[in-house]
Amino acid sequence: MPGVVGFALFGAGRIGALHAANIAASHPRAKLAYVFDTNQEAAASTAAKYDAQVAASVEAALGDASVDAVLIASSTNTHVDLITAAARAGKAILCEKPIDLDIERVERCRRDIAATGVPLQLGFNRRYDRSHRAVCEAVRAGEIGALELLVITSRDPGLPPVSYLKVSGGIFRDMTIHDFDLARFILGDDPVEELYATGSIMVEQQLRELGDVDTAMVVMKAASGALVHINNSRRAVYGYDQRVEAFGSRGMVQSENLRASTLTRSGVKATDAREPLLHFFMERYRQAYLDELTDFINVVDAKRQPTVGFEDGRCALLLANAAWEALRSGKSVRIRYD
Amino acid sequence: MPGVVGFALFGAGRIGALHAANIAASHPRAKLAYVFDTNQEAAASTAAKYDAQVAASVEAALGDASVDAVLIASSTNTHVDLITAAARAGKAILCEKPIDLDIERVERCRRDIAATGVPLQLGFNRRYDRSHRAVCEAVRAGEIGALELLVITSRDPGLPPVSYLKVSGGIFRDMTIHDFDLARFILGDDPVEELYATGSIMVEQQLRELGDVDTAMVVMKAASGALVHINNSRRAVYGYDQRVEAFGSRGMVQSENLRASTLTRSGVKATDAREPLLHFFMERYRQAYLDELTDFINVVDAKRQPTVGFEDGRCALLLANAAWEALRSGKSVRIRYD
Amino acid sequence: MPGVVGFALFGAGRIGALHAANIAASHPRAKLAYVFDTNQEAAASTAAKYDAQVAASVEAALGDASVDAVLIASSTNTHVDLITAAARAGKAILCEKPIDLDIERVERCRRDIAATGVPLQLGFNRRYDRSHRAVCEAVRAGEIGALELLVITSRDPGLPPVSYLKVSGGIFRDMTIHDFDLARFILGDDPVEELYATGSIMVEQQLRELGDVDTAMVVMKAASGALVHINNSRRAVYGYDQRVEAFGSRGMVQSENLRASTLTRSGVKATDAREPLLHFFMERYRQAYLDELTDFINVVDAKRQPTVGFEDGRCALLLANAAWEALRSGKSVRIRYD
Amino acid sequence: MPGVVGFALFGAGRIGALHAANIAASHPRAKLAYVFDTNQEAAASTAAKYDAQVAASVEAALGDASVDAVLIASSTNTHVDLITAAARAGKAILCEKPIDLDIERVERCRRDIAATGVPLQLGFNRRYDRSHRAVCEAVRAGEIGALELLVITSRDPGLPPVSYLKVSGGIFRDMTIHDFDLARFILGDDPVEELYATGSIMVEQQLRELGDVDTAMVVMKAASGALVHINNSRRAVYGYDQRVEAFGSRGMVQSENLRASTLTRSGVKATDAREPLLHFFMERYRQAYLDELTDFINVVDAKRQPTVGFEDGRCALLLANAAWEALRSGKSVRIRYD
Repeated sequence: MPGVVGFALFGAGRIGALHAANIAASHPRAKLAYVFDTNQEAAASTAAKYDAQVAASVEAALGDASVDAVLIASSTNTHVDLITAAARAGKAILCEKPIDLDIERVERCRRDIAATGVPLQLGFNRRYDRSHRAVCEAVRAGEIGALELLVITSRDPGLPPVSYLKVSGGIFRDMTIHDFDLARFILGDDPVEELYATGSIMVEQQLRELGDVDTAMVVMKAASGALVHINNSRRAVYGYDQRVEAFGSRGMVQSENLRASTLTRSGVKATDAREPLLHFFMERYRQAYLDELTDFINVVDAKRQPTVGFEDGRCALLLANAAWEALRSGKSVRIRYD
Repeated sequence: MPGVVGFALFGAGRIGALHAANIAASHPRAKLAYVFDTNQEAAASTAAKYDAQVAASVEAALGDASVDAVLIASSTNTHVDLITAAARAGKAILCEKPIDLDIERVERCRRDIAATGVPLQLGFNRRYDRSHRAVCEAVRAGEIGALELLVITSRDPGLPPVSYLKVSGGIFRDMTIHDFDLARFILGDDPVEELYATGSIMVEQQLRELGDVDTAMVVMKAASGALVHINNSRRAVYGYDQRVEAFGSRGMVQSENLRASTLTRSGVKATDAREPLLHFFMERYRQAYLDELTDFINVVDAKRQPTVGFEDGRCALLLANAAWEALRSGKSVRIRYD
Repeated sequence: MPGVVGFALFGAGRIGALHAANIAASHPRAKLAYVFDTNQEAAASTAAKYDAQVAASVEAALGDASVDAVLIASSTNTHVDLITAAARAGKAILCEKPIDLDIERVERCRRDIAATGVPLQLGFNRRYDRSHRAVCEAVRAGEIGALELLVITSRDPGLPPVSYLKVSGGIFRDMTIHDFDLARFILGDDPVEELYATGSIMVEQQLRELGDVDTAMVVMKAASGALVHINNSRRAVYGYDQRVEAFGSRGMVQSENLRASTLTRSGVKATDAREPLLHFFMERYRQAYLDELTDFINVVDAKRQPTVGFEDGRCALLLANAAWEALRSGKSVRIRYD
Repeated sequence: MPGVVGFALFGAGRIGALHAANIAASHPRAKLAYVFDTNQEAAASTAAKYDAQVAASVEAALGDASVDAVLIASSTNTHVDLITAAARAGKAILCEKPIDLDIERVERCRRDIAATGVPLQLGFNRRYDRSHRAVCEAVRAGEIGALELLVITSRDPGLPPVSYLKVSGGIFRDMTIHDFDLARFILGDDPVEELYATGSIMVEQQLRELGDVDTAMVVMKAASGALVHINNSRRAVYGYDQRVEAFGSRGMVQSENLRASTLTRSGVKATDAREPLLHFFMERYRQAYLDELTDFINVVDAKRQPTVGFEDGRCALLLANAAWEALRSGKSVRIRYD
């Protein structure tokens, strides 16, 4: 019978708090043992809320044998060090995306942890969304025949603070990276070979100084010839817009947005009007985060490798980097994975 | 090869004008020969528009051998006399609903024209709406197995003038009669045996003096046990609401409303909002009126009896009368068709 | 700060198990102290699963001061005795519907517990469904102006066992009672004054011996003139069909069904096809049961009366009884609430 | 008062026959005077059907003063000559797209007819589709604020014969050209500055020899920064898929597909399933062709220039050519319009 998995949580910010709640209060087979954050107040508050301990240091948490796994939800630039330390301590790892913004560091990390063999699951939440997942399953089951066109619509409700944007790695590494992974998830063993991207600043002119964009389009071509389109905006006033459309030789499947209720309104000016979309990822992917945690716990229990791992994080970053290259050169980029 | 059918139009009001346009300008096998209306100006104007003659009298039009058929779109109280005269003249008849408000006159008319054998088609436009018709066809094809529940939503966009309401025969004979016929259309050879109705005045208090209501609900039970519900309002601010839902042992089919376009809008307050419904019957059933005319022309050509005829008009009136009886008595009414 | 509410659960069947899970594993402010069931195995199994005690008797559980509240999920015929005992013991009560099938026993129970003043919340789950609730809130907020038509579609996916049907009180007291309560919820302080009902046996011929029906329609008229329609079937092959449509002088609001995902499929034969509906009440009203529990815990904390209480259970039963009377007499029934 | 416009029709193939019917049988202010086709049988059959004359030659038709306008629906390689001849004869011109596949010939034609001043309307049917048009109007009215993303989905139900494909100019000049024009229509005075395209052969391997593709994606960037995506397939098994989505700073508008009816089906395997899409352009854009003709007749009457003219045809071809260049080079192409 499966046991309870003891967790150390690294990072007690917004997404860390969500994971803390899922571990401590929503999952019968998870226990929150430690919380660590360089912001000690945040760590203390989260720990107190769920009867966990504040870890004095990363090492302290990793040194406790009751800790089976770590959940890394700290800022991106700390991910590689935490992954490496946890892997060396033999702990299973669930790490928020991205692994790192720098592909060199990612490669080095890969080499560093290769020998440990610990399971490392990447937090690509869209893979656990039941609607996107249903698209993927329908494609895998052959329902639409050969996949020919894949269209991913992914728009945030609003721009993050410029202070965050400065360290975000830019839209492709911060935001589109989820869509790159989702495309890879649905494509399965059909690798993206070529990528083109373009972008504009339509929302926040300060992005010009950062060399970033807030509105973007990507086109990719896979080995099979399947074509993929992604469109992004940092500001959808009607809510977090997350849709996937997979088209093939035998039909089409689509996943639609979620709303808080199924209410529709009909009046003088409009009919069948639905509610605004769920606001953002905390709402839209609430169930996905739970399912992601369950999958990870099953990984730990079964001592198997996760279905979404380090290699997926590395490949998504390769695509994001290629997008920056294409946007700057105006040329499509051939993807090399080795 | 089918020939051209010459029409005499009786009645050049709003619905008469629509039929005139359909006969004269939209149907390749119809010709508008005469227009008659006691309002000579209306007759002259419609005739001029379509190069037809103004008939000096009903008899004049019926006496012309080039007239194959009459379309009766005059006020309800003239229908029986015009039907009788046209039948005796051997002309095929397309008559707007209802035959008459008085079941005794309807029965007499039935006897009077029985011997003539002319085809008489009743203008129950809903039978020709492609969506409602698709519901009927799916039911007949056995797609939903045995029909068990039928729900008809039928709401006008606004109340007609009180002057009209006074001679309308009340909501059940004027408005619900279409829904009674639609129910009979879908039920096929499964007759309604029992009917209950209730109603309220929610829109126009003047109806109280007329003994009429503007908001109503009907429940009927057919011989098979299938149950039918109709709900009516004289005022749907979002447009003419016309829906049918047929539920059975193997599933459900529904027909939805029509709009001028498929535009949807998503903004801060609402998402996927569609346009208001098509305003009223002239818009919603525009195609239905054309298809109804085509069916009638085929009837005339083939010298066959129409699929919706006198008996359908009589039975719908029986149900409407039963609804008034039920509303007044508070008791369900057993329907007798003989 | 709100404390943790200790629960004794009476009844460990299917719905009891759901409540046990909600209390013990999904609600941070609830604790499952005792489980009691005449089926000791069921009690033991549920208690073990959530670290609760098996109560040797109802009295034992009610005698423990750490029990703040009882949740009654046992068979209907035990409800009145358990309510009475719990009320006398000063425990807050959350009781599954219906209170009882016999209005005399309900009236007696009302008198018996009147003096105790304990809060008693009835388990009308639909009131906590976020979509139905959104309809209610829109109506209350005046979004559709005066409510004029209310249409409730309520169809079960399949018939319960005949053994259950024998003690169910018949469709109106067992199934439609939820819809009666939902209508009352949306009507607010506008009481139903008149009711008509009819029904058929379309699914299971054995119901004839029980005097029950499996397919039914109800029409009700409220004091304001608002008309209400309910249609029921015991067998919707496409899943648990639960919809509400409220129509008024200024527009319409509707609540739609729920599905496991937003996937749609388009192929040769159909487009935009959605998944079957969530199977039944355990799935469709999963969130509603949680929200219902939260509301009850807030009632206990705040020592206030619940928003859905004994009187609501009594009135819903009065309407269900009237439905049987109408079905048998063929006449509409005036409702007397005193 | 507007008069009747006399038409000479050049080309009596499939699309010519549709235009003949619209001119002769569906539009009160149009008259079909002549039909010309090098296939004399086709010309004779169409002429006979609508009481028009077969023109012995193009010159004969153009020499008749009762001919006010020509409708060019012949094969693409004849367009330029017919345009030039008609312009010199002073006839108004409604010409099917494209003007020609060769931009040099198009430029020469532009110079040749410049002095004549005759109105020339291009047959970009999508501009007259009421749903796409509603998207355009909403954008122009500022409903979505600044346009930021435009996504056009355009998929044919099946591949044309290879014989046609050989002379079609390839997917971008034959099929996507409509989408390029639609994008330009919605962008208004915001010109496309940069274009990238890619494509695959997923449907018909014979295309390889033709240097054509059957599955394609385009990304464009307008002067404002607005980004445009088009995706195409030659084979959508569920019907002719034609959708437009315009996203901006204040919201989103979308146009959806059309079906023959609003029927939906719910059963064991799927719910709310709609019918397949209207099969192809003859069905989907039936109303659009009529509205296009009406607009043209108003142009002729008012002696004004059409809203979609020669320059639109030329620019769409420039974009199509750029798409071929991008597909072959793997680089985005800067568009030069002069």
